[in-house]
Amino acid sequence: MITHLLSAADLDAETATLVLDTATELAAAAGRSVKKFPTLRGRTVVNLFYEDSTRTRISFEAAAKRLSADVINFSAKGSSVSKGESLKDTALTLQAMGADAVVIRHQASGAPHTLAKWVDGAVVNAGDGTHEHPTQALLDAYTMRSRLGRLEGLRVGIVGDVLHSRVARSNVLLLSTLGAEVTLVAPPTLVPVGVGSWPVTVSYDLDAVLPKLDVVMALRVQRERMNASYFPTEREYARRYGLDARRLGALPEHAIVMHPGPMNRGMEIAPEVADSPRSTIVEQVTNGVNVRMAVLYLLLGGAVGPARPTLNVPPAIDPEGAR
Amino acid sequence: MITHLLSAADLDAETATLVLDTATELAAAAGRSVKKFPTLRGRTVVNLFYEDSTRTRISFEAAAKRLSADVINFSAKGSSVSKGESLKDTALTLQAMGADAVVIRHQASGAPHTLAKWVDGAVVNAGDGTHEHPTQALLDAYTMRSRLGRLEGLRVGIVGDVLHSRVARSNVLLLSTLGAEVTLVAPPTLVPVGVGSWPVTVSYDLDAVLPKLDVVMALRVQRERMNASYFPTEREYARRYGLDARRLGALPEHAIVMHPGPMNRGMEIAPEVADSPRSTIVEQVTNGVNVRMAVLYLLLGGAVGPARPTLNVPPAIDPEGAR
Amino acid sequence: MITHLLSAADLDAETATLVLDTATELAAAAGRSVKKFPTLRGRTVVNLFYEDSTRTRISFEAAAKRLSADVINFSAKGSSVSKGESLKDTALTLQAMGADAVVIRHQASGAPHTLAKWVDGAVVNAGDGTHEHPTQALLDAYTMRSRLGRLEGLRVGIVGDVLHSRVARSNVLLLSTLGAEVTLVAPPTLVPVGVGSWPVTVSYDLDAVLPKLDVVMALRVQRERMNASYFPTEREYARRYGLDARRLGALPEHAIVMHPGPMNRGMEIAPEVADSPRSTIVEQVTNGVNVRMAVLYLLLGGAVGPARPTLNVPPAIDPEGAR
Repeated sequence: MITHLLSAADLDAETATLVLDTATELAAAAGRSVKKFPTLRGRTVVNLFYEDSTRTRISFEAAAKRLSADVINFSAKGSSVSKGESLKDTALTLQAMGADAVVIRHQASGAPHTLAKWVDGAVVNAGDGTHEHPTQALLDAYTMRSRLGRLEGLRVGIVGDVLHSRVARSNVLLLSTLGAEVTLVAPPTLVPVGVGSWPVTVSYDLDAVLPKLDVVMALRVQRERMNASYFPTEREYARRYGLDARRLGALPEHAIVMHPGPMNRGMEIAPEVADSPRSTIVEQVTNGVNVRMAVLYLLLGGAVGPARPTLNVPPAIDPEGAR
Repeated sequence: MITHLLSAADLDAETATLVLDTATELAAAAGRSVKKFPTLRGRTVVNLFYEDSTRTRISFEAAAKRLSADVINFSAKGSSVSKGESLKDTALTLQAMGADAVVIRHQASGAPHTLAKWVDGAVVNAGDGTHEHPTQALLDAYTMRSRLGRLEGLRVGIVGDVLHSRVARSNVLLLSTLGAEVTLVAPPTLVPVGVGSWPVTVSYDLDAVLPKLDVVMALRVQRERMNASYFPTEREYARRYGLDARRLGALPEHAIVMHPGPMNRGMEIAPEVADSPRSTIVEQVTNGVNVRMAVLYLLLGGAVGPARPTLNVPPAIDPEGAR
Repeated sequence: MITHLLSAADLDAETATLVLDTATELAAAAGRSVKKFPTLRGRTVVNLFYEDSTRTRISFEAAAKRLSADVINFSAKGSSVSKGESLKDTALTLQAMGADAVVIRHQASGAPHTLAKWVDGAVVNAGDGTHEHPTQALLDAYTMRSRLGRLEGLRVGIVGDVLHSRVARSNVLLLSTLGAEVTLVAPPTLVPVGVGSWPVTVSYDLDAVLPKLDVVMALRVQRERMNASYFPTEREYARRYGLDARRLGALPEHAIVMHPGPMNRGMEIAPEVADSPRSTIVEQVTNGVNVRMAVLYLLLGGAVGPARPTLNVPPAIDPEGAR
């Protein structure tokens, strides 16, 4: 039972599976041309974005609108935030205006957790600093399950700048909850210090890992880091960690290639890999809308009123299935 | 009977009371979990903002959407305005597009009045220069009435940079219409020249005034003015005009503390005062949405069609009640 | 039968007439106070704007909302585009999110055509570089037909910086399809090189042309071009090509004056001409919403589902009427 979605660690196996199953139902409805649901009519979803992220913002906006919620976009740039208002006062303001959910993107790790202390509505973390991006992990898990039929026992390689990647952190948490085996592949300078306590294997050699993977996920290289001293040269990065046609050939035949987007084509992923039938990059975007619909649906429920239903999961029948 | 809301002076006692009563009904409906009304379906409300004010914009946006209006946000930055289009041509354009109401925030005092000459739809002043902010005055009056049960005879202190405050101007006009007694407390350099003709008392000594107040309202200090020659030092301002715990204690027990937000905590108001149970600052935000719903409801009415209903008030039965 | 609206050349006479007739019906419904249609409920229209153009964006936004579509505004500034994402990846993302239509404004001529290769949804060109702006041509044709009763045989003068004008290009294409006779009037340096192959007459002498026109359309002068070496001085431009009261008098009595807006009053058009009863400038804005509703209606159709109806025009009965 959760009231917010702040971290992938908030989700036990049943809750995560409930989200994925709900998204599957929504996708099936969309396939039958049912694209709009009255579920959240009268509910207000605020997109509170302290960082630009059009892609994530419009995914949440589309998700909320398909559930008939009213959506208010609040870009913190040029707002009272820039006049010195604290996150607390912004939070109290949004709550007082009747926000039923606040979707927050913030440059500071932990900001969504702080926000959740001050609002009664549901808080959804849409990316906080280098910390987490739990709906990305959910849509990635959805994509893997949808392509490969299961998550349990799946061997997933996550490749690139793990150190700064909220996508990597959320995926590690969720995938291990759901029984997948994660290998992180990164330059030594881009592996987090505490990785020894993570439920993962670490490798510096992508080519050695590829033949054993069911899924390879390239992380986005952030251009602003490319010139940092801890960062390999662009050429070195692409040579050692870029997914190119040769490496695609080294994967098992059934394996898929993922990327959270937006891509730097030619850097972490070659165009022929991004556009190959084994790439799920475009599907991930579609799945993102369905997964976010599922999250908003489960957090806000259908009933208009103060008794907000939550991701209320019945007791696990098979305790082996719980985390 | 009014067709626009340009100034708090447009509202006689009956009309203002009608707005407050309507807002009370809307708040009661929200308390019964009725948050969405079909009243303005098919109507278009344009938020025409020449200044950034996310807080005011989203309050009007939430209000209009709860009435089922279509909302179009028009930020003048980067628009054809910056290509040299005049306010007149912008007005004619919005009217031609079928805007039923234009909510305007403008840095120039009087801009909403000018706009109202050119559009048939309702114009709502959402803040013009140092001039007026009538919906702020309405939400403040609503908050006082809701907390203290009446407005007639209420003693209200408005503290701070009165000279540059549209909030102060609109509150003085509306509160005097509704029978409250206003005392302005400000540094001598921040009292308007013509204040002698206002229906208020002026004081330079906050501590002398506090024990006689039912309401104390701190005005926001605008940071860009703090270094001006007419402005006291920050330290001096906080010492003489800041609401702190000691001053909270000097108020009568029933008195409330108000602030239009966003606050400079530690400058015009101390955190322990802002967060005390006697502070109405968060309620003011909630009330703002209900009051703006009431204003849009009364200006645009429910009927779709060219015969736009107005704030059509029946003749006063008791002429003493009229302004 | 078209699936996108990329160029005025995509429209044969029947299709263009179908758009105009549909807009006429929508305008009539609005006149009967029917302003909101359920037609596109559950459909998503994305406004993808790489250039600021508030006027065009809110016209499309109002049109889509009156048809009950969900509208998502995507300003490319500060988006992943600025992080280096290609138009192709943006296109694939929007399609994957379920955009049923993408309305694109882009500084590069041809961008909408490129976009249309990658999306299944309908693409509407809302202005691409100096190339085309087909919905502007449609609203202009609508305005002429509505004021003057016909398009066939109408003599239309288009005056100004034809070289850089997408409005001129789209109008030339559509008006010739619909049987009007176009004269371009421009300084020699602002006439396109290939104009010899266009179905138009070219003149450098506005005063000689005026008495023979049914319609005179002033093009907007873009301030950033005024200092270019190929551009006449402002004074020279206004003297030779500006529409002033004297020139208004030289037109036949029934002739109308058009401008796509926003105007540079005093430059290409004098205030007394812009505001005269023979000016259709404000009507053009109203007509723009109705024409864009018609375009979205015909491209997206009413049925929710993958079988998107198109501008499916029955075979021409009278082949003379076809282009």
